[in-house]
Amino acid sequence: MSETFQSVAIIGLGLIGASIARAVRAHLPEVRLRGFDLDPDVRARAGELELVDDLAEGAADAVAGAELVILCVPVGAMAAAAEAIAPGLGPQALVSDVGSCKGFVASELRRVLPGARIVPAHPVAGTEKSGPDAGFAALFHGRWCILTPEEGADEADVARLCAFWTALGAKVEVMDAWHHDTVLSVTSHLPHLIAFTIVHTASDIERVTEGEVIKYSAGGFRDFTRIAASNPAMWRDIFLTNKDALLATLQRFNADLAALEQAILADDGVALFELFTRTAAIRRGIVEQGQDVGKPDFGRPSL
Amino acid sequence: MSETFQSVAIIGLGLIGASIARAVRAHLPEVRLRGFDLDPDVRARAGELELVDDLAEGAADAVAGAELVILCVPVGAMAAAAEAIAPGLGPQALVSDVGSCKGFVASELRRVLPGARIVPAHPVAGTEKSGPDAGFAALFHGRWCILTPEEGADEADVARLCAFWTALGAKVEVMDAWHHDTVLSVTSHLPHLIAFTIVHTASDIERVTEGEVIKYSAGGFRDFTRIAASNPAMWRDIFLTNKDALLATLQRFNADLAALEQAILADDGVALFELFTRTAAIRRGIVEQGQDVGKPDFGRPSL
Repeated sequence: MSETFQSVAIIGLGLIGASIARAVRAHLPEVRLRGFDLDPDVRARAGELELVDDLAEGAADAVAGAELVILCVPVGAMAAAAEAIAPGLGPQALVSDVGSCKGFVASELRRVLPGARIVPAHPVAGTEKSGPDAGFAALFHGRWCILTPEEGADEADVARLCAFWTALGAKVEVMDAWHHDTVLSVTSHLPHLIAFTIVHTASDIERVTEGEVIKYSAGGFRDFTRIAASNPAMWRDIFLTNKDALLATLQRFNADLAALEQAILADDGVALFELFTRTAAIRRGIVEQGQDVGKPDFGRPSL
Repeated sequence: MSETFQSVAIIGLGLIGASIARAVRAHLPEVRLRGFDLDPDVRARAGELELVDDLAEGAADAVAGAELVILCVPVGAMAAAAEAIAPGLGPQALVSDVGSCKGFVASELRRVLPGARIVPAHPVAGTEKSGPDAGFAALFHGRWCILTPEEGADEADVARLCAFWTALGAKVEVMDAWHHDTVLSVTSHLPHLIAFTIVHTASDIERVTEGEVIKYSAGGFRDFTRIAASNPAMWRDIFLTNKDALLATLQRFNADLAALEQAILADDGVALFELFTRTAAIRRGIVEQGQDVGKPDFGRPSL
């Protein structure tokens, strides 16, 4: 990889930034790593963990001389991060990010950094943990990273970023930014919206105590609480910046849920059985393509 | 345990029945196990796996002489199973079950088996796998088993069943059947209904291909597919027999989802952040009380 990037700057050292740092260390040990986080506590912890070679005291300082700059901040903070790095950005630097919405982020980066080399990216990977301690090198292994270059983007830049993510263990796909946002509204944003809602409903319902919800959560509810424990700021920003695609997908979900409710009201067991049989096929595809483990219960150890 | 039940009959040898058989073997080796399944293939497989000591060719035959009979069939098949065992049931036999709805099952068992000793039960445990091969002895370790005896039930029967489930590694709670159905509508039935719906929506939406849904499922969607891969007949029956509690809980969920949608439409980031911060607390309770593992991603190995 030394023919592509010799110096990489990571802005934002939470779960994703820290995981990129550890993955670079593991897979591209010759790369010089620079890093910065706006939060002094995170910065101090990143220093203790020795996540990067050079921990900067400012964003502009962190990107000085970097050939690749990756913004690993919540989507709503991308514009501010881009403004902060602008003074230090060299003409050779390729600017990328890891945001879960690409249309909004791409237009913000283009607005704030006119003339810069920009290739937005989204590694579809994560856990419910946040912060620098949560990062680990294998997070991107076998996961997809979606690049959403603008029309007319430099093909060499796209190829270099593709090689970078491939080196970190990811599989890379190139896609239109707005199509990305529709796809992810289905596979990620709506599931999180629903999970946050159901956890809220369960904690708020009068007829059942919170203690009961926790005790009997192994009946299905606990699986929703994992993704509803994800970073609140990150998800607030995703929902607000991918609003159109998300609400369109939500509308479909609401219609499907209403149809299922009607089938239950009508005692239509045949329709229910047929639907529940079809949904199992998607699970098989996900396991076969290595996007989940096939062991029961996610391979959870018996507690 | 020999002072409680010396002979146990299991009717239905799927995931739960097979797990009870294996758990009895592991924890109560002196118990004589009898078993039956209506499906000849399941019966043959149970024989190959040597799940029970005596594999019967009929339900009535299976329960002859048994001190505890556990019906491990879908909720909608309970009445038929109770009718089938009736001719073989001795006066000493305690009849129980493992169904996820207790109000409906209790009244069905009472109707079909007037005068019998009945203590309905629900072990809140399971995986997305079905069938005799999916059973394992540790399934109930640390999980709750809820007993819902009728008013006036024999306290000695309740105590014996409590001791049985405790021996299998479960924690036991006694509860009113209808309250059980409300609690489980929140912690199990609604989550499954939502998971089935979202997997259906994702597989059916025009703007996104099924291949894309599978590829990018690691963004959250895959967690829903696990519970939507559960036994279709079992879930059809649960939704139809716990309809009232389920639809009341669904109404709350729909109201909460509509409020969240409004907050997104109104760009109310403060409300979203506050809500998403609160939902993390329930997750902590579930992990602290041993109802889930605290490792990121359910402790899934990196793929």
